[in-house]
Amino acid sequence: MNTAAESAGAAATLNEQMQALGRTAAAARGALAQSSGAVRNAALAAAAHALRAQRAQILAANAQDMADAQARNLSSAMLDRLRLDDKRVESMARGIEDIIALPDPLGSVAAEWTRPNGLHIQRVRVPLGVIGIIYESRPNVTADAGALCLKSGNPVILRGGSESRQSSAAIHACLLEGLRAAGLPSGAIQLVPTADRAAVGMMLAGLNRCIDVIVPRGGRSLVERVQAEARVPVIGHLEGLCHVYVDRDADPEMARDIVVNAKLRRTGICGAAETLLVDRGCPGALLPFLLDALAEGGCELRGDEAVQRADQRVKPATEQDWSTEYLDAIISVRIVDGVEGAIEHIARYGSAHTDSIVTNNAATAERFLRELDSAILLHNASTQFADGGEFGMGAEIGISTDRFHARGPVGVEQLTSYKYVVRGSGQVRPG
Amino acid sequence: MNTAAESAGAAATLNEQMQALGRTAAAARGALAQSSGAVRNAALAAAAHALRAQRAQILAANAQDMADAQARNLSSAMLDRLRLDDKRVESMARGIEDIIALPDPLGSVAAEWTRPNGLHIQRVRVPLGVIGIIYESRPNVTADAGALCLKSGNPVILRGGSESRQSSAAIHACLLEGLRAAGLPSGAIQLVPTADRAAVGMMLAGLNRCIDVIVPRGGRSLVERVQAEARVPVIGHLEGLCHVYVDRDADPEMARDIVVNAKLRRTGICGAAETLLVDRGCPGALLPFLLDALAEGGCELRGDEAVQRADQRVKPATEQDWSTEYLDAIISVRIVDGVEGAIEHIARYGSAHTDSIVTNNAATAERFLRELDSAILLHNASTQFADGGEFGMGAEIGISTDRFHARGPVGVEQLTSYKYVVRGSGQVRPG
Repeated sequence: MNTAAESAGAAATLNEQMQALGRTAAAARGALAQSSGAVRNAALAAAAHALRAQRAQILAANAQDMADAQARNLSSAMLDRLRLDDKRVESMARGIEDIIALPDPLGSVAAEWTRPNGLHIQRVRVPLGVIGIIYESRPNVTADAGALCLKSGNPVILRGGSESRQSSAAIHACLLEGLRAAGLPSGAIQLVPTADRAAVGMMLAGLNRCIDVIVPRGGRSLVERVQAEARVPVIGHLEGLCHVYVDRDADPEMARDIVVNAKLRRTGICGAAETLLVDRGCPGALLPFLLDALAEGGCELRGDEAVQRADQRVKPATEQDWSTEYLDAIISVRIVDGVEGAIEHIARYGSAHTDSIVTNNAATAERFLRELDSAILLHNASTQFADGGEFGMGAEIGISTDRFHARGPVGVEQLTSYKYVVRGSGQVRPG
Repeated sequence: MNTAAESAGAAATLNEQMQALGRTAAAARGALAQSSGAVRNAALAAAAHALRAQRAQILAANAQDMADAQARNLSSAMLDRLRLDDKRVESMARGIEDIIALPDPLGSVAAEWTRPNGLHIQRVRVPLGVIGIIYESRPNVTADAGALCLKSGNPVILRGGSESRQSSAAIHACLLEGLRAAGLPSGAIQLVPTADRAAVGMMLAGLNRCIDVIVPRGGRSLVERVQAEARVPVIGHLEGLCHVYVDRDADPEMARDIVVNAKLRRTGICGAAETLLVDRGCPGALLPFLLDALAEGGCELRGDEAVQRADQRVKPATEQDWSTEYLDAIISVRIVDGVEGAIEHIARYGSAHTDSIVTNNAATAERFLRELDSAILLHNASTQFADGGEFGMGAEIGISTDRFHARGPVGVEQLTSYKYVVRGSGQVRPG
């Protein structure tokens, strides 16, 4: 057992270690900001190549992590998130290649205009700064997030879960090879080398102003902690309490297809629908039709009294159910009074993430799209489209429900800031 | 003297008062977000009308503030910032009319595209949320900031300096008239009704998550406190340590005009140049020419040894001078080795606000514009153009040197967030 002095000494050492990480990352900013898109792509290509070439080493490291995890009795869901195989390694490499294919966000002109006095103004994209990624379990985040940050010219400090430490280290080694091959500083992608939990708190404090933004990737308790403690901006979301509202003017088969896909395509993602709202004015057969499709798909049904009467498989829903993100094959179902009732329910119980309306009434749809303020609003499409890839961004580092800086899927373009470049011919400001 | 119980009671009362302000502001979000541009403009027009109609009352309130300030021996600079007259009241009303003339930022489509699967995606602008403005001395901020927030659909909580309390209240009354005339809730523009300093701390804590962003308008110590304590995002800047670099390929007369304007047009604004960098490779006569123009304009000169040799009016500059924002008719002058030396100096000593290069060498200019990362970079133009009005934004709530959300002048468009509106025809996500 450590003495107080030993503990203090260890803490000081960790602090120095983490501060050094911060300084190294900040020192890499200039080289990345000035690098050409071709050089960054070359680094990414070499990293993807290394992932494939070192597949055996990566899987061996993962096997050690898996053995440790099994010995510690981690749940099967956690083991599944932790596990790597040939397919997942290949998927990491291909994900990096998708990012290579994206246009270079840096130096691109977001807007330009000329003033009456002749000044020509451009808003030009630049990197955001040093990004801290704090994630759990899934080792592929090391590759995905590392590649997104590099593409957008941002040095990154990666802090993965301790259970995936050896896998992440093996993947990180491939990313370092990529940097080396392209002549970029190794400080551009750093992995926090210690499992000490205090390291996370130090990142959240900003590493003495070296970290510009934190991105948490993981479960609710991680995101809550980050949002509560971070002294730097955070990109992310706490809940994906998504709704599908089926209106009286909905096409029944479209409604069924969308509802089933929104709930059951993948139940564990933030864009999975958690509550189905059905218009009281729908034809009588529609509700049982939807409930049956969900039940046949393996979904547990919970609903208000009217919904319970429509299908005997429906369990009673409590007030709590309207506020619950199940992340499972469970859905809460409620009858509402038209689009107005749907808007009221979603504004009250939703998390402003992603909400969808199914209707063939254009005016009703426009009202829903206009009056709600979720990050993503869909008309006649599944909530499962809440994804950077589906949006055409190529990849995302996460989805934000904040209102500041980025909202919705956060891709390479959202990982940039901008500067104004003003070209004149000698203008001075009058008065 | 208050007992502990009395103090605790007073604190509880202030807390309740401030929390109520927060809730009222948050409650106004929906009405503002759904209001049309015409209604918001009608409110602004009625407010401008009220300012003119109630000029006498405003000036009377200001006279009381001035009398109190003089009795407390405030400096003449502070008295000048506090003072209102016919011209300044008219200027407030005209400032509001400039804001009316701006296009409505809400509901505008920032980007749109169609996916291969037919989904049509739009990024649509929405209000940012509740904005807290914390400002000192200048009562016109009540009108300017109130109008900018209203135009962009954001409820605002205004907390001005205690010395301008009566003036701000009289101006606020006019803004309330505007809201009433247009049928908008009075909670859209609230003035903190107490001089208790603890109110500021409560705003910085976010008023129980009711405030979405804080904008400090004032001196360094205010901005420092806000940036250090705020638990919500802050839009603003700490320093405007701006540079003009005169390159060997500069036109001498253009250089003189720009340098004199950048330093002396108005010395107290953030875009005023604080350091002049002169290329060692400039023709020998240029440095004395520039120094003489500055000295003749009433500017105190401080410089390194080479600069001291060029003009006997130059006092020695210390290391501290390169990091000093004088906000006065004082400039520090240094000889640097070409654009590379200028970039090095600015990167080291600057505040990433606004920096300018004077040269007729296009390649040199491009290098300066590319390698520096200030919020605003100018080629052959004065740093005094660092202003939302000069940028064509119509008005600004401040200038940001942050990298997150907004950088450079922050106008109505930067006071918005966005949501994605996705229109489909029944698409479900595969796999």
